[in-house]
Amino acid sequence: MSPAELHADSIVIDGLIIAKWNRELFEDMRKGGLTAANCTVSVWEGFQATVNNIAASQKLIRENSDLVIPVKTTADIRRAKEQGKTGIIFGFQNAHAFEDQLGYVEVFKQLGVGVVQMCYNTQNLVGTGCYERDGGLSGFGREVVAEMNRVGIMCDLSHVGSKTSEEVILESKKPVCYSHCLPSGLKQHPRNKSDEELKFIADHGGFVGVTMFAPFLAKGIDSTIDDYAEAIEYTMNIVGEDAIGIGTDFTQGHGQEFFEWLTHDKGYARRLTNFGKIVNPLGIRTVGEFPNLTETLLKRGHSERVVRKIMGENWVNVLRDVWGE
Amino acid sequence: MSPAELHADSIVIDGLIIAKWNRELFEDMRKGGLTAANCTVSVWEGFQATVNNIAASQKLIRENSDLVIPVKTTADIRRAKEQGKTGIIFGFQNAHAFEDQLGYVEVFKQLGVGVVQMCYNTQNLVGTGCYERDGGLSGFGREVVAEMNRVGIMCDLSHVGSKTSEEVILESKKPVCYSHCLPSGLKQHPRNKSDEELKFIADHGGFVGVTMFAPFLAKGIDSTIDDYAEAIEYTMNIVGEDAIGIGTDFTQGHGQEFFEWLTHDKGYARRLTNFGKIVNPLGIRTVGEFPNLTETLLKRGHSERVVRKIMGENWVNVLRDVWGE
Repeated sequence: MSPAELHADSIVIDGLIIAKWNRELFEDMRKGGLTAANCTVSVWEGFQATVNNIAASQKLIRENSDLVIPVKTTADIRRAKEQGKTGIIFGFQNAHAFEDQLGYVEVFKQLGVGVVQMCYNTQNLVGTGCYERDGGLSGFGREVVAEMNRVGIMCDLSHVGSKTSEEVILESKKPVCYSHCLPSGLKQHPRNKSDEELKFIADHGGFVGVTMFAPFLAKGIDSTIDDYAEAIEYTMNIVGEDAIGIGTDFTQGHGQEFFEWLTHDKGYARRLTNFGKIVNPLGIRTVGEFPNLTETLLKRGHSERVVRKIMGENWVNVLRDVWGE
Repeated sequence: MSPAELHADSIVIDGLIIAKWNRELFEDMRKGGLTAANCTVSVWEGFQATVNNIAASQKLIRENSDLVIPVKTTADIRRAKEQGKTGIIFGFQNAHAFEDQLGYVEVFKQLGVGVVQMCYNTQNLVGTGCYERDGGLSGFGREVVAEMNRVGIMCDLSHVGSKTSEEVILESKKPVCYSHCLPSGLKQHPRNKSDEELKFIADHGGFVGVTMFAPFLAKGIDSTIDDYAEAIEYTMNIVGEDAIGIGTDFTQGHGQEFFEWLTHDKGYARRLTNFGKIVNPLGIRTVGEFPNLTETLLKRGHSERVVRKIMGENWVNVLRDVWGE
C-alpha cells in the first residue's frame, strides 16, 4: 500500500481540535482524511453558555451533513469511516461547565460530550490546572470522576496539574488520557509531561495523544513534521504502541482575540501565559495535511500495523473502553 | 451601671447569624438588644440564587422597618443604635456566589454585602474549606481578595482551610476575620482554630469573633453561657482585647432539612459532617438572651470598658477599617 492508500484506508482520529467551527474546517477535515475528532465546545464557559455552544455546533453539523456526522459511540466512528465523513465528538477542555451540579455530567453525555478535561490551566471545583500550584483532586472532583465513569465520559488531563492528574489516574475506574500533550523530555514546559508522568498514566491503563502545538515544541515555530514524529516516537517509547495516538490541538480559523481569551484565567482575568506567534510544524500546518503524518511515520520506519494504531485505532479502542459502546 | 443598663447602652454586634429570615427573628434581635448583625444570604447558592435571596431579604427588611434597617456603613450601625433598631449586614459564607466573575464582587457590595467568607467547608475557585485537604489560595482567589479590598468587603475565614486562611491573611491589605470560630485549645475540631492560627491572624491586624455552636464546644449541647465566656476569654488571651468580638452562629428557626443542606457539599453531594442535635449553651439559647452575655462577662470580672469592646465596639472599628466608612 502506498502511504496515501494506507492513510485513506486507516481510521484517523484527532484527539483534540480547538479550531473555529465552520464549513471550511469540515472541508479541511475531509481533505485530511480524518475519520473523527474530539472538538472543543467548552473552555471557560459555564453550563448555559456551553449548552448554547453545543446547540450551535449541532446546527452546523446538521447543515454540513455531507461532510460530518455527530459521534456518540465508536460505532458512529466506524459509520463515519464507511460514509466517507468525519465524525465529531464533543469535548470540554474544562469541567467548569459542570458547575456545582453532578447531574450535569449525564446531561452533557446525553448531548454528545465524550471527553472532558478536568481543569483548564487553573483551579476549579474539581482540581487545579497546570499553570498554578496544584492542591490535587477535590472531594467534589472525586464525585465528578465517579459520575463520568458511570455515564461514560473520558477524563482528559492534558492541561491538568501534576498532582490532580495523578489522583484522577488513581481515582478513575476507566482509562483516562492526556489527549494532547508533549514530553518534557524534549522541552521543559508547564504543559509538557515528564517521563514519569507518561509512564504513570500508561501503567494505569491510560492513554496519551501527542500534540504539536508550537510553543511546547523544542524548535517552536521552526518545527517540522519530523519534529512532531520524533515527539510521537519519544512518547511511544515510554507508553507503548497500544496507548498512543494523535491530539494535534489544531486552532485554525481563530484570531488573536481567541488566544487572549484562552491565555487569561476565566477568559478575562490575569494572564497565565503568552503563546506568541502560533505556526504549526511545516508539513502539518492544517488539518488537510494529515496524510503527510502517515507518510512521515512510514518513512521513519514504522510498520503499517503500528502507523494504523498511532493514527487512530488505539483511540477507538480506548474510547470504546470508556464509552462502553 | 447595672448589667442590663450597660447592655442597653452598648453597641452590640453579632458577627454571624444564619437564622431563618422572618419577623420573629427581628423581634428576638430587638429583645436581645442587638445593634447589628452579619446575616448570611449565601452558602451554596450561585450568583442568581444569591441575588434572589438578597431581594427577598431586602423586602423583608422593608416590611419590618419598625425593627430593622439595612447596614452598608458603620454610620448605619450607629444610626440603628440611635433609632433602637437592629442593623442588618448581608454576608456570604462562601465566595461561590461570585462565580467566575471578578465584577460580581462590586455588584454584591452595591447590594449591601459587607462580609464574605472565602470558602465554605470545601474547595471553590478561590481556595479550600476546612473539611477537606487544602491546597491554598488560588491565583483567581488572589484576584478576588484584591477586588474585595478595593470595594470594601471583609474576608471571613471561619470555615476556610488552614493554608488558604494563612495565605488570605498575608494577601489581604485590609484586616480579615474569623467571624465565628472557637479555639481548638478547648476542643479539637476541623472547624476550630489553633492557638498559632489565632495568634497569626491577630499579629496581622485581623479579627476573631467567637462562636458557641454546640458541636464545636467541649461540652457540646451540655454547655452553658459560662463555657461560652470561657472560650471568649481563652481567645482574648491570645488575640488581645481589641481584636475580639462575638459571632454566635445562631441558627434559630431552621429545621433538619436546612442542616442537611449545610452539611453536604454543594448542598446535596457527599456528606461532610454531621452536627447531631444542636442546642445553644444554656443562658444564650436564642438571640433574645443576648443581655445574659454582658451580665456573664461582668460577673466573671471583666471591666465595663472591656465588655463594651467584646460586645461590639471592636467589630465596629474593624468593619470601618475594611469598609472605609
